[in-house]
Amino acid sequence: MQILVLGGDGYLGWPTALHLSDLGHEVAVCDNFARRGYDEEMGVESLIPIATLDERLGAWAEISGKTIKPYVGDLCDAAFVHKMVADFRPDTIVHFGEQRAAPYSMIDQAHAVYTQTNNVVGNLNVMYAIADIDRDIHLVKLGTMGEYGTPNIDIEEGWLEVEHNGRRDRVLYPKRPGSFYHLSKVHDSHNIEFGCRIWGMRATDLNQGVVYGADTGQTKLDPRLATRFDYDGVFGTVLNRMVIQAVLGHPLTVYGNGSQTRGLINIVDTVECIRIASENPADRGEFRVFNQFTESMSVRQIAETIANEYPGECTIDEVDNPRVEAENHYYNAKHSRLEELGLKPTLLSTTLIDHLFEVVERHRDRVDLAAIMPTVRWAATANELPRTASELAPAP
Amino acid sequence: MQILVLGGDGYLGWPTALHLSDLGHEVAVCDNFARRGYDEEMGVESLIPIATLDERLGAWAEISGKTIKPYVGDLCDAAFVHKMVADFRPDTIVHFGEQRAAPYSMIDQAHAVYTQTNNVVGNLNVMYAIADIDRDIHLVKLGTMGEYGTPNIDIEEGWLEVEHNGRRDRVLYPKRPGSFYHLSKVHDSHNIEFGCRIWGMRATDLNQGVVYGADTGQTKLDPRLATRFDYDGVFGTVLNRMVIQAVLGHPLTVYGNGSQTRGLINIVDTVECIRIASENPADRGEFRVFNQFTESMSVRQIAETIANEYPGECTIDEVDNPRVEAENHYYNAKHSRLEELGLKPTLLSTTLIDHLFEVVERHRDRVDLAAIMPTVRWAATANELPRTASELAPAP
Repeated sequence: MQILVLGGDGYLGWPTALHLSDLGHEVAVCDNFARRGYDEEMGVESLIPIATLDERLGAWAEISGKTIKPYVGDLCDAAFVHKMVADFRPDTIVHFGEQRAAPYSMIDQAHAVYTQTNNVVGNLNVMYAIADIDRDIHLVKLGTMGEYGTPNIDIEEGWLEVEHNGRRDRVLYPKRPGSFYHLSKVHDSHNIEFGCRIWGMRATDLNQGVVYGADTGQTKLDPRLATRFDYDGVFGTVLNRMVIQAVLGHPLTVYGNGSQTRGLINIVDTVECIRIASENPADRGEFRVFNQFTESMSVRQIAETIANEYPGECTIDEVDNPRVEAENHYYNAKHSRLEELGLKPTLLSTTLIDHLFEVVERHRDRVDLAAIMPTVRWAATANELPRTASELAPAP
Repeated sequence: MQILVLGGDGYLGWPTALHLSDLGHEVAVCDNFARRGYDEEMGVESLIPIATLDERLGAWAEISGKTIKPYVGDLCDAAFVHKMVADFRPDTIVHFGEQRAAPYSMIDQAHAVYTQTNNVVGNLNVMYAIADIDRDIHLVKLGTMGEYGTPNIDIEEGWLEVEHNGRRDRVLYPKRPGSFYHLSKVHDSHNIEFGCRIWGMRATDLNQGVVYGADTGQTKLDPRLATRFDYDGVFGTVLNRMVIQAVLGHPLTVYGNGSQTRGLINIVDTVECIRIASENPADRGEFRVFNQFTESMSVRQIAETIANEYPGECTIDEVDNPRVEAENHYYNAKHSRLEELGLKPTLLSTTLIDHLFEVVERHRDRVDLAAIMPTVRWAATANELPRTASELAPAP
């Protein structure tokens, strides 16, 4: 197949492009290097050094004999998106090309607006390119399990059968996300479902869990093929960050009491899920949703698993939760549809954790410990004035 | 109370500002005149001539002795919004300031992106101004009944009690809107509900039905106080448009078989609903939703009511439905909460329709009949190429 990977220079976009190319698909990647720019803005960098896109593509050609075509540009530029899709004529567009950190979206007004505009407009432009050029192009869109929030009922895969006052309907699963970033993905999902109705688009929305892991079969073939590994308080996700804390002898920081439960997925399963979704396209007009994770764990369970496995001293610290989110909540999220299509889950194991310890050990001199702690607080707006009239003028 | 009306120069924003000012509230209006700009772009104009905002405010001061303060600027300009809210220090912000025509949002990619960016970013900026300056400011936000679509179950007011696999939760009512405009309001609702959770915002989301009517107690006091009356295929809504067709001896155009059912509300009830919502604020942290309409009718019933009432010849024509929407659907939408707070509904009556005939008769020379018919088709994208590979290369 011809597969275009948007955000193909990122943590998951790059390994996905390699995996699909390795399997013989004709792959192109698109990126505007926004993710590398956020590093500059935040003053942090990937734990594992990463090559430029140019070096990456050259290394892959050298090692595999296969070429991946690069498109450099911004998805918010509709003319660029249209030209790229008309030029490459993909069968599938895999869309990783969005700002993907909840804390980044919560920094202040400008970052919230940037995240929603960038993600929603970029996705609309991709939808219009498909509608204009070829409505049979299958859109495989990365969403997040965070779109659902933590409802008190089972989380289904995107749709819910409801009975209400004696009547039934199949409705979009109600969403209650936890950041302006997660909200941007909810907006995308609603827009895409509408595109399926009016244009007969084929779409697969992948509500992905928290991804962990440092490499895949392809990225480890050569240091120039490595993908990024983020551990900072803004872009780092929980498991990767805790592995680094363990190796550095820093307490594992759990937000709040750590009872928050999340779906997890290993990076090698992510790239397989994308292959499975691409090779089994949605029907014309179908808005298909898969929950893309393989196991659920509480943040505390993750910390305990890592602490138990770490050969040295390792403690766990509860820090003030910077987010506004439920603790001690019900969580039962379904995730059978990708397994029905052939996914063989790679569950978290001591081997996997040991491998991560080793990766971090190799790059430990690159870690900036100060970057690990959370700096963005959900209830603040970064530039707020006194909050209420009574705070302005205290009662006499 | 101090009430700031965003979009205060528009069809409903202006009469709302007058109504609230008339009742003794301290009112300010904000507008960037985008709505007058759309008229220029589309080459149409309001059936009833409207004065400039400056003339309107002068006339109101002259007639009522009351002043309404104008703020001219764009809600997408965060610094402007912050300054305005800090300067006026409202108790309530009534937010009409969005692009509000479904067909306009469906013209092409640029209009879809404009509508979602303008509405979502403007609303985020208002939310941030509230969070920064005073979280007790009550946001009264105009949404639309079109956010719900036409589910096969009863439509509740914003929230739904769900039982699923033996567990219960109260969830946001699942939305399935019918245009990129309606989607922008769904995005707003999700963003605001989040603001209530993280910042303790007070918000009332008003899912309004199709508004009809030409004037209120205040707008008819002087021609300079008149509000706009749109009948064109892009901004005109169904009832107003059909009244004009009747007066001009043009068949009433029903889209499809006309069985689509919609909630309706008279303009005099709209301004009352805003008063009621403002004077009974939501609690801290509450995301409150009211369905703001007073009766449901099918498009065909509306046409038949007008045709029966019109003294002259009047026929009904079914035209190809330009929208992608369900016909012959179930529709039972609740709307009791505003009535519980004191709304006395003004139902569609022969007197009301006769009054509209008279208004249109007075301005019939201003009608451009060519502007009435729908020009925007939902399934098209205005600039599409051949749609599928098979259309590009027909089978041999």
